[in-house]
Amino acid sequence: MRPLDPAIVARLHARVAELGTISEEPGRLTRSFFSAAMTRVHARFAEWAEAAGLSCAVDPADNLRLRWTSSGVTAANENTPRPLLVIGSHLDTVRDAGRYDGPLGVLTGLACVEQLRAWGEAPPFDVEVVGFSDEEGLRFQTAYLGSAYYAGVFPEAWLALRDAAGATLGEVLSSRGTPAAEVLAAQRAPAGLCGYLELHIEQGPQLEADACAVGVVSAIAAQTRARLVFTGKAGHAGTTPMDLRQDALCAAAEVVLAVEARARATPGLRATVGQIAVSPGASNVIPAGATLTLDIRHPEDAALGAAVAALEVETAALADARGIGLRWEFLQKGRAVPMDAGLSGHLRAAALARQGAAPVLVSGAGHDAAVISRVCPVAMLFVRNRDGLSHHPDEYVEPADAELGLAVLADAVVRHAAAFP
Amino acid sequence: MRPLDPAIVARLHARVAELGTISEEPGRLTRSFFSAAMTRVHARFAEWAEAAGLSCAVDPADNLRLRWTSSGVTAANENTPRPLLVIGSHLDTVRDAGRYDGPLGVLTGLACVEQLRAWGEAPPFDVEVVGFSDEEGLRFQTAYLGSAYYAGVFPEAWLALRDAAGATLGEVLSSRGTPAAEVLAAQRAPAGLCGYLELHIEQGPQLEADACAVGVVSAIAAQTRARLVFTGKAGHAGTTPMDLRQDALCAAAEVVLAVEARARATPGLRATVGQIAVSPGASNVIPAGATLTLDIRHPEDAALGAAVAALEVETAALADARGIGLRWEFLQKGRAVPMDAGLSGHLRAAALARQGAAPVLVSGAGHDAAVISRVCPVAMLFVRNRDGLSHHPDEYVEPADAELGLAVLADAVVRHAAAFP
Repeated sequence: MRPLDPAIVARLHARVAELGTISEEPGRLTRSFFSAAMTRVHARFAEWAEAAGLSCAVDPADNLRLRWTSSGVTAANENTPRPLLVIGSHLDTVRDAGRYDGPLGVLTGLACVEQLRAWGEAPPFDVEVVGFSDEEGLRFQTAYLGSAYYAGVFPEAWLALRDAAGATLGEVLSSRGTPAAEVLAAQRAPAGLCGYLELHIEQGPQLEADACAVGVVSAIAAQTRARLVFTGKAGHAGTTPMDLRQDALCAAAEVVLAVEARARATPGLRATVGQIAVSPGASNVIPAGATLTLDIRHPEDAALGAAVAALEVETAALADARGIGLRWEFLQKGRAVPMDAGLSGHLRAAALARQGAAPVLVSGAGHDAAVISRVCPVAMLFVRNRDGLSHHPDEYVEPADAELGLAVLADAVVRHAAAFP
Repeated sequence: MRPLDPAIVARLHARVAELGTISEEPGRLTRSFFSAAMTRVHARFAEWAEAAGLSCAVDPADNLRLRWTSSGVTAANENTPRPLLVIGSHLDTVRDAGRYDGPLGVLTGLACVEQLRAWGEAPPFDVEVVGFSDEEGLRFQTAYLGSAYYAGVFPEAWLALRDAAGATLGEVLSSRGTPAAEVLAAQRAPAGLCGYLELHIEQGPQLEADACAVGVVSAIAAQTRARLVFTGKAGHAGTTPMDLRQDALCAAAEVVLAVEARARATPGLRATVGQIAVSPGASNVIPAGATLTLDIRHPEDAALGAAVAALEVETAALADARGIGLRWEFLQKGRAVPMDAGLSGHLRAAALARQGAAPVLVSGAGHDAAVISRVCPVAMLFVRNRDGLSHHPDEYVEPADAELGLAVLADAVVRHAAAFP
């Protein structure tokens, strides 16, 4: 295995640290869609791309696009676009974020191209390193604005979304001179797009448990989000006998535990009640109503569907037994996104060679790769992060783990090039 | 048994209806401490009292006091006050209230005096019908302002309480010309006070279940209020395996059900979780924190103390098993208020004679009687109300039930007079 260039590795670490300081808020890292902080980030990438011999552009949805036009691409006639492999992740953050979630993948993509060139590689495809402008959804409460535009699937309905200051997404997209409607009319996936690789922190504890720096994603889990609404009967806490109560919170508590028990008993299932509210919400009044959110995920659509269906039956019985009404409102039913076997195979082979093991993980979190999978094969490499902690300033990746991630990514591109049709 | 005077009964019903229309808010019944609506109520009582031959006064805490100076009181020397039996309840309401909770007791007290006079009774004590100015605590979020002043136990610390408009309770009490400090310095229980009777709607379903119009209260339950604070660990709903979670809400849900189970298994115990909140409170984040309120009541102090102690141990074990921190914060530890055996005996005997049964109930709710019990013996008569519903405009008492309440109250006063030392 060829060693990494120490200068490239050092630049990667320095850039991660530097981007961690470019924020729209003093004292903490927050970088939202179409922010001035994002523009400052793009300016730094433009300098780094020029130094590395890549072209640099920012598209109308504020996605950063660094292109390496490979000398290894065989001459095509003018009707056949140059094949394109994309290495991407996102440059936006949550509020008070860590510095790795997103930017590590973009910076490793740039370092990967630098390393491939340093090794003298000339793959039979161009490589575009992409920094998506919005994956977290902080500004408009809708995620994947950047990758949706990049893939050409940005829905017009999103233009009416408003940020906290009252501006619509349409107004924001129009702010650089081209009306948003024209921006959307022109959206399409890049010509020649034939594959997408994304390196991202795991945001979970599995790699730590496996004592591995990197792992290969097999699928992004299917996710269902629902709101459960319980209707009981209010009553005086001091005067209503226990056997005459219809306490909506007691029914909700049974459901919280039923959800947890089912997830514990079902391999691969993760289920969470993250919000709960009761009405009228007075300490001396029996709750007449309760509402909770359910977030439930599984790597396989069928298993998730079965778990949700079983919970619907089980929770209805629990509520019925108490004389409590229960209504499920489904907010989202997302399908699982399987990773491409070919691209994932290159990542696994590279990981096995570099660290002697290639753990396979399901991603419980969503990623830009899920959106890009609508237009080309995708694969993902996860890098271990401390305590699985993310969306927090204490988010941390060991430098050695980031280096192994870079090495495996670069090796995988080389393997992909060797196997390219 | 002597029949009630139909004219007195008719006036009682008409007055209940009329007071139900005297409100500080259009379209719904709301009457708070020191409100103009309360002054309009007092003006009506002044007319009714004059017609009935009672003196009428409003004290510095806005309590209405109607005095029947009985001709049956034996001549006392000037150092011995005339003995005084009080029949009282409150004239304030919650927001959007029913018309019976409080006013029914005051108006029945007035009707009782009218009936005693119509029967030609001359008890060996004066009777004062009192309409307390604040039992619900709507304006200053502290209940029993009226009865506390009446009993001479109004604490100076309350003067600093502020209403929603920013006025302090001290400013309100000073608004009639006498500084609040002087008002409090002069407070003392009425001379000669030797007993207190209160008729009140049940605000619970027990009398309906017993198919009885009235019942006699044995005690006002002891009440403990606490806040339980759970501390777990936040985590990503999609990436954190079930067995690595410290979900504060799951622990709280177990506690909600443990509280309910203990109350169901312990005769006389009522326990309610009326408020719950989780943090950070996002649908895709495992709750790091949860807070809930516990309201727990029992007619006996020792039984309540034992139940709370058992729950402290049980909930600590539940939280420990999950690696969740749990802290109890006690907000209130109120003792049970037993009713006077002699006065209650007269109510029971009268109820038995009038309805053939004398159900004995514990009051889960607090009442003015609990405050007055600090200065004299007290007893309470409950009147059935539909569905146990109170604090709601649909609160309802059958006219026949109110009449039986009046009859039992009047009979009990006659019995008390006959047995008076």
